[in-house]
Amino acid sequence: MKAWEKNFRKVEPYTPGEQPVFADMVKLNTNENPYPPSPKVAQAFALLGNQAGKCRLYPDFKAEVLVGALSDYYGLEKNQVFVGVGSDDVLSVAFLTFFNSDKPILFPDITYSFYDVWAQVYAIPYERPALDENFRIRREDYYRENGGIVIANPNAPTSIAEGLEFIEDIVRHNTESVVVVDEAYVDFGAQSALPLLEKYENLLVVQTFSKSRSMAGMRIGYAMGHPGLIQAMNDVKYSINSYTMNYPSLVLGTAAVEDEAYFKECCEKIIKTREWAREVLGRMGFSCLESSANFLFAAHGSVPAKKIFTALRERGIFVRYFDKPRIENYLRITVGTREQMERLFYALSEILR
Amino acid sequence: MKAWEKNFRKVEPYTPGEQPVFADMVKLNTNENPYPPSPKVAQAFALLGNQAGKCRLYPDFKAEVLVGALSDYYGLEKNQVFVGVGSDDVLSVAFLTFFNSDKPILFPDITYSFYDVWAQVYAIPYERPALDENFRIRREDYYRENGGIVIANPNAPTSIAEGLEFIEDIVRHNTESVVVVDEAYVDFGAQSALPLLEKYENLLVVQTFSKSRSMAGMRIGYAMGHPGLIQAMNDVKYSINSYTMNYPSLVLGTAAVEDEAYFKECCEKIIKTREWAREVLGRMGFSCLESSANFLFAAHGSVPAKKIFTALRERGIFVRYFDKPRIENYLRITVGTREQMERLFYALSEILR
Repeated sequence: MKAWEKNFRKVEPYTPGEQPVFADMVKLNTNENPYPPSPKVAQAFALLGNQAGKCRLYPDFKAEVLVGALSDYYGLEKNQVFVGVGSDDVLSVAFLTFFNSDKPILFPDITYSFYDVWAQVYAIPYERPALDENFRIRREDYYRENGGIVIANPNAPTSIAEGLEFIEDIVRHNTESVVVVDEAYVDFGAQSALPLLEKYENLLVVQTFSKSRSMAGMRIGYAMGHPGLIQAMNDVKYSINSYTMNYPSLVLGTAAVEDEAYFKECCEKIIKTREWAREVLGRMGFSCLESSANFLFAAHGSVPAKKIFTALRERGIFVRYFDKPRIENYLRITVGTREQMERLFYALSEILR
Repeated sequence: MKAWEKNFRKVEPYTPGEQPVFADMVKLNTNENPYPPSPKVAQAFALLGNQAGKCRLYPDFKAEVLVGALSDYYGLEKNQVFVGVGSDDVLSVAFLTFFNSDKPILFPDITYSFYDVWAQVYAIPYERPALDENFRIRREDYYRENGGIVIANPNAPTSIAEGLEFIEDIVRHNTESVVVVDEAYVDFGAQSALPLLEKYENLLVVQTFSKSRSMAGMRIGYAMGHPGLIQAMNDVKYSINSYTMNYPSLVLGTAAVEDEAYFKECCEKIIKTREWAREVLGRMGFSCLESSANFLFAAHGSVPAKKIFTALRERGIFVRYFDKPRIENYLRITVGTREQMERLFYALSEILR
């Protein structure tokens, strides 16, 4: 070890999900949207091309155009909206801003795998109450003293959503800490906690452009909450990197928000494909949890998930497999286009034969 | 104070530099480049518009296309280059990764004002040896025990650059900690520390697209160093936000690096304008420090800086004024186009009359 290496921050190196690039592959492993972003986004690109000279200037660090579009869309004030470089950036800033207690923050044992990574890198104590035997969150687990709560709703990788009453119950039991509800997948059929913002000043709702708005490549996420929470997040954000949202993300993100009809149409298509796919998988011997997301969490009755995962990979079809306790027999399958799902089913029919 | 607010991270809210937007203003306050980015960047935008569908996919988290272009340009290996969302992001990750000692990190009392902000937000002890009476760094101040060193070269807001031998002397005296050389302004006539990378495994050189490459709006910065340093930074970065560089920044950043001729031409124009402007300011009663950056640091012999700053503002001309000890009589003036500088000089001639 070199002398200076003793001062390096110790982290468990996190490996992001695989981003394979093969011609003719079927990519159902990172919950991207199979449809392109709104045609208005393509038009906005053209506008950017004509104004490339603007790139020489720093972007608006308040991101007002995008914050304005989002607050209009959700019926909030501008000071209730925070934007960041994907919801990972938003969540990371939330962890850093809100979770500075000696008491542990709480989130389920099976949930978005980045939560423990942030807790570790920022030295935040945490505990992970176990989901019940049906992979449901037990609300009573969140009734005790804590330094903060993080609930993904719908949860990932389980795809299960809890109702608004359930979320409100958890928020109501936690008046001394910030409750973060991560709604990355909410647009695919779950209830958002947004209506609770009027009643609870300690609730932060986080969403993203990466799934329902088909813009994972643009890296745009946002949080909505009481102005006191948003201000605290901006104070921390401005102390790390004031100008995070680049010029194209501001312009294209705004264009996407303004096309509500296209957005809803894409979400409905995905929901329809999901329900059909769930039925087909059922006939093939899979049990899928009930999904409110753009993915299915599926276990086969007799063939191990790892075996199916590997066999699909060999056929150029990528799904997600987690080699972790309790879920090692499940596959997380992104809902693609109908054509992509048909290719998946054909491959599965060969593999399971 | 609300119950949950006691767990908020305490930060000194940092206020980013003013971004005024007036028709016909002269903006010389944030060291942006007065020239647009390379025409190849505008062309690349058009390409992006035709491929807007790609935005639905996550970007390459390794940013290989951009890392490849930069490593080719500087004659390095890919594993010697780290990219981030502006050099602020890169420096912030470096602070978080390398500076975890109980000993203080060292940087000058007058330098880029974000260094203390990061040290505070990440709870890193720090000391700030004073620049000498000519605003030069005293190398001996950096010969003692420390948890890390950060030197901006050229320094900001002084505009003064030290030579390669000076920087090497500091690196040579610090074999137990990481030495970060922040070269945001290096392309305007200073010597880069890059040739030292072969000899020193604890040296990190940070640069940006925001100044010499006319792309502040794209938020692209990078660090170059030994693969061990770059790996450690990526480990930390992947633990915070794996996908930081969005699709346009990867494509447009690469296009910019590939147009060396345009880049050099812009830098030369700015250097030429700077030297002429320094002479004119001298005739108007200013003393300007010798600049190797795209800005001048100027004090007038009889009129207080704050008064000039305010009077310029009233005329729609924005320069930077720091109300801080030792430099409260200086203005930091970005070198714009010749036309912008002429408007500045005309306004100054009125103000100083």
